[in-house]
Amino acid sequence: MHFASDNAGPAHPAILEALTAANEGYLMGYGNDDITRGVQDRIREIFEAPRAAVHLVSTGTAANALLLATLSQPWETVFCTQVSHISDDEANAVEAASGGASLTHVPHSHAKMTPEALAETIESRGRMVHSPQRGPVSITSVTERGTIYSTEELSALTDVAKAYGLPVHLDGARFANALVALGCTPAEMTWKAGIDAVSFGGTKNGCLAVEACILFDPDKSRELEMRRKRAGHLFSKHRTLAGQMQGYLADDLWLGLAGRANGAAAALAEGIRALGLGESFVAEPQANILYVRWPRRVHAALIEAGATYYVTDGPLEGDREAQLTGRLVCDWSMTEEAVETFLGHLRGAVRG
Amino acid sequence: MHFASDNAGPAHPAILEALTAANEGYLMGYGNDDITRGVQDRIREIFEAPRAAVHLVSTGTAANALLLATLSQPWETVFCTQVSHISDDEANAVEAASGGASLTHVPHSHAKMTPEALAETIESRGRMVHSPQRGPVSITSVTERGTIYSTEELSALTDVAKAYGLPVHLDGARFANALVALGCTPAEMTWKAGIDAVSFGGTKNGCLAVEACILFDPDKSRELEMRRKRAGHLFSKHRTLAGQMQGYLADDLWLGLAGRANGAAAALAEGIRALGLGESFVAEPQANILYVRWPRRVHAALIEAGATYYVTDGPLEGDREAQLTGRLVCDWSMTEEAVETFLGHLRGAVRG
Amino acid sequence: MHFASDNAGPAHPAILEALTAANEGYLMGYGNDDITRGVQDRIREIFEAPRAAVHLVSTGTAANALLLATLSQPWETVFCTQVSHISDDEANAVEAASGGASLTHVPHSHAKMTPEALAETIESRGRMVHSPQRGPVSITSVTERGTIYSTEELSALTDVAKAYGLPVHLDGARFANALVALGCTPAEMTWKAGIDAVSFGGTKNGCLAVEACILFDPDKSRELEMRRKRAGHLFSKHRTLAGQMQGYLADDLWLGLAGRANGAAAALAEGIRALGLGESFVAEPQANILYVRWPRRVHAALIEAGATYYVTDGPLEGDREAQLTGRLVCDWSMTEEAVETFLGHLRGAVRG
Amino acid sequence: MHFASDNAGPAHPAILEALTAANEGYLMGYGNDDITRGVQDRIREIFEAPRAAVHLVSTGTAANALLLATLSQPWETVFCTQVSHISDDEANAVEAASGGASLTHVPHSHAKMTPEALAETIESRGRMVHSPQRGPVSITSVTERGTIYSTEELSALTDVAKAYGLPVHLDGARFANALVALGCTPAEMTWKAGIDAVSFGGTKNGCLAVEACILFDPDKSRELEMRRKRAGHLFSKHRTLAGQMQGYLADDLWLGLAGRANGAAAALAEGIRALGLGESFVAEPQANILYVRWPRRVHAALIEAGATYYVTDGPLEGDREAQLTGRLVCDWSMTEEAVETFLGHLRGAVRG
Repeated sequence: MHFASDNAGPAHPAILEALTAANEGYLMGYGNDDITRGVQDRIREIFEAPRAAVHLVSTGTAANALLLATLSQPWETVFCTQVSHISDDEANAVEAASGGASLTHVPHSHAKMTPEALAETIESRGRMVHSPQRGPVSITSVTERGTIYSTEELSALTDVAKAYGLPVHLDGARFANALVALGCTPAEMTWKAGIDAVSFGGTKNGCLAVEACILFDPDKSRELEMRRKRAGHLFSKHRTLAGQMQGYLADDLWLGLAGRANGAAAALAEGIRALGLGESFVAEPQANILYVRWPRRVHAALIEAGATYYVTDGPLEGDREAQLTGRLVCDWSMTEEAVETFLGHLRGAVRG
Repeated sequence: MHFASDNAGPAHPAILEALTAANEGYLMGYGNDDITRGVQDRIREIFEAPRAAVHLVSTGTAANALLLATLSQPWETVFCTQVSHISDDEANAVEAASGGASLTHVPHSHAKMTPEALAETIESRGRMVHSPQRGPVSITSVTERGTIYSTEELSALTDVAKAYGLPVHLDGARFANALVALGCTPAEMTWKAGIDAVSFGGTKNGCLAVEACILFDPDKSRELEMRRKRAGHLFSKHRTLAGQMQGYLADDLWLGLAGRANGAAAALAEGIRALGLGESFVAEPQANILYVRWPRRVHAALIEAGATYYVTDGPLEGDREAQLTGRLVCDWSMTEEAVETFLGHLRGAVRG
Repeated sequence: MHFASDNAGPAHPAILEALTAANEGYLMGYGNDDITRGVQDRIREIFEAPRAAVHLVSTGTAANALLLATLSQPWETVFCTQVSHISDDEANAVEAASGGASLTHVPHSHAKMTPEALAETIESRGRMVHSPQRGPVSITSVTERGTIYSTEELSALTDVAKAYGLPVHLDGARFANALVALGCTPAEMTWKAGIDAVSFGGTKNGCLAVEACILFDPDKSRELEMRRKRAGHLFSKHRTLAGQMQGYLADDLWLGLAGRANGAAAALAEGIRALGLGESFVAEPQANILYVRWPRRVHAALIEAGATYYVTDGPLEGDREAQLTGRLVCDWSMTEEAVETFLGHLRGAVRG
Repeated sequence: MHFASDNAGPAHPAILEALTAANEGYLMGYGNDDITRGVQDRIREIFEAPRAAVHLVSTGTAANALLLATLSQPWETVFCTQVSHISDDEANAVEAASGGASLTHVPHSHAKMTPEALAETIESRGRMVHSPQRGPVSITSVTERGTIYSTEELSALTDVAKAYGLPVHLDGARFANALVALGCTPAEMTWKAGIDAVSFGGTKNGCLAVEACILFDPDKSRELEMRRKRAGHLFSKHRTLAGQMQGYLADDLWLGLAGRANGAAAALAEGIRALGLGESFVAEPQANILYVRWPRRVHAALIEAGATYYVTDGPLEGDREAQLTGRLVCDWSMTEEAVETFLGHLRGAVRG
């Protein structure tokens, strides 16, 4: 019953196998090899973006920070929500990589911003030379609250950004989960919806540690490469990254893994509803993350029973009936049995 | 009728005279001179802080950024309000000087934060290694909305900061205006109220361009000096800064100038009240800045009549009865005549 | 005949096996797991340094930059040679990670500095507030020219640094190669010789991508952790790094791999001497890297025959008798056969 | 007998008068005023560069660092000599302002680089993605050793830079001294000789604290403005800077002051030669700085007699006949009497 995070499960065996295969023999370093080139080509193909620049890194924070540094100037501000990973979980990585760009928070509902809120926030910045100048917009989908932007919603946001001449970055740490849930193509979820740059995540969806930085306009490709190098993010044995990504993309493994994670979360959500707890969802479940509001005693009983997940707004000790928020994440390795067991304990706890 | 800013008026003649006197003869550079040492000693005396480190710079942005960089680490976040000068008017100067520290906004009312809001915001940061770590608190008084913290209010805020082990910086761009309004001593408004570092402003109160960075704990004095040097803020002909500050502090000129500015603003406020517009103040006037809500036609008439000030939330064209916010600032050079003339035009405009 | 670099060969199969084993099951992220803790303990044991802070990263550039940023201030300068990896091969990574520290070159002979040269260079910096202040000394061993510092030489250098109160960093990208060549203990080569911090390399010696940052004084451990996080170098699936390091250290695999690489290089050197080319070594071969001066036609013939290595000071076209420098690197996977084949071609080329 | 530095003398009275005049009345802040615009136009006129961007700052370090940051990327390296002010006297200001660009030293003779040395040094950088990439070339004239580049020498250097596509910056802290010595026009000494950006110094030549950043190609003007703002170098009472510069340029005061400084140095040099010490010049005197090699006892006697200057390579105590280097700087305020007095003491000391 491991619902803590999709970075706590194992990598898929096929990823390890691909990595092991890529390890064979002698290969020039730093990405100057056929495995890397093959992976870059495959990503361009998947995204229907033959000119896109594609560069691999090992962490999502690196992908976000390097892309946003490439899209911004140090006197600009990046528009994002307060709960975005770049604001809340990266210890000033964007500020560091960019040499001092700031973040400006756009009001949000369940981690999603509206075009109106975005426009109003953009308007509040860039006054003459004094305030931080308007820089890129950074959107996350699947969001940090488990919600997803529809392609129409993405287009509406990027329309606002474009009206101000601002580029748009998509934090796709859970790109595949969003894609499978939307049932659209990678192109439709990105450049066709006005997205300029994507952190294309692999780590949370069955890889060990690999993400792709994608720039649909390749003009800044060299800048990204230099930023990656000076940040210590250029791997010498580059097949370490490329081998994983090769396995990830082969035979649509990445889509299958996201489907499994989303499916497990859907089964979990259905089970919760079946227990009459459908009202406890903070937002309508869409991908592989559920946020639920349950009494403290319910959380305590579940964790006592061996479930692993985060209660985000309070300790397990205290008023037993107080409502606390739990975050339940399913990764590709989540089993039907684990979901069933969890629901069994939940049933007991609720009745308890 | 020049109410645009207290940086648009001239320096006081005595400042120019002191600067001219300081210019005589040969003097070793970089602050290694008796005028500078005298000024540092005088500031320590005024603040009853014999151990304090005092270093001069030419702009308020430099003072704020260098002090906050000295008090923080690049992976920390500085707590301030959204309307603070460091957030809204310095184009990421804190982020730049600190090497990437971020700002976290504390909710505010008329630019003042409450201890509760500060504590809650501090709690929201510093989660494990992931989120930006808790760093210094930065308070402004006179605030960017013209309000002032009482010494009790300052103590209540610094108590919260101290409970978390965080240092507190005071942006005192209008330090003298706040001091005169409070009627307390510099020590009472700063270290006796728990403040650790002060940007002690001179520019807005009758100097040309000089501010003092004050660190009550001198342990980080050398760090501040090195940060000033590498930022290009160490003046070679250091008497350029020290001469101004010498004139500013001599014979309590600085207090007199602030008294004049505050007095002019008080006369302006009284005149506005006398016109039955006492309800139009956004916040109760306390120092030398008034924020007023008047119909657009009133603003338009005043500016048409030659008044200079900022209407902060809309253009002068549009619905004539719509309420817009005006910012009226009095500097030391504001005359009774100018205030009277303005009030005359206001009377006409209101009746208009 | 792959002599281009020890990052071009494959990882050792046991590393892949260890990684695959570490991938089993559910494990909390970000290094908060038993595999990581076990690896940290093992490194402390190997170094006889029970209090040392140990943190894993994926690249040598990251290890160097994060450690040197932790040991320095942005207004300081790092003393190193002109040919050091941090100066010549990391695209300003130290400057970036430190927020603007500079590098100062110490004169060197075959990439080794003398205590006299180090002292003289330190003396040239730190003048008052003006010049960059004296910061850490960074030494590499095995050096970038294939030479090694004896423990006595290391101690003599660190004595100089200590006399100025400066910490000393060892870039140990090829730590095991140096250790095996010296025949001393890890403690003798580091803290017993006055070294404060080590980039303990794994990648070049048979891992995929893992290095350990070691701080013998753990006071700055938390700072290193925060710097790693904000640089995007904290792996969520941390076992990706820890699993490799576990395999690397198990059963002294790391020492065996370095012994193989050094042995292959020794066999290569002996073969070169046997061909009467003993004078062509730029410096006496000590570990797994040889620098040789041969006529252009010899290099051209070898590369034509399929050998892979860098000729560092000129193109392959030109005066056929001109002496050019070749760099020959052996990694753990170098075979006797490859060395023999290479020597056969060399024999032919020399006679050619 | 004040020969320590041209930043230790007073500002010229006309500068103070111009500043006092500029202080009259009400003026919008941040450079949005007619005095500033007038000064910018005048500089464009003087340089025959109607499109040039001109921005004022208060220190030479700020001018150098902001211009070089604007001309470079953080992964690039700036080519300069080891004795350049940016390398030796600005405590990593370029590294700080640029967000981590590095400096690479070009070999020099008396602070001047040759085209060959520059080309060779450029060649040594920019290897693939690994080493710092080639960035701007920074030249100083009058150099830090008192020498001057002829316009032909400048052109030869900029030709090399242009061949690599690199921009060229001139540190003109003593621009007027060089110009007067060369007897050419500002255009001939800058853009006609291939210079792209100039730190046009005022402080050392009779101002209090003002320098102009000049970019002949105005495309990066806005970037420079934003960098100035975030560095805390945008003055609110901008006439503080513009007023000085106005006085400096009026009636060719700046040329007259440089002529006086150079003339005093020439008289000093002639007097030294007349004493038979013509061989003691480290380099042929050209502007307002002399470097001389004299026995320690001579320096000691002069300083004992009240002369102020730096002995740069040793203390005044020690072997009395050892040759030490003295730096003698004349500013505009140097009098014939002071020179004569000094020469009198020198005569005595030499015979001593």
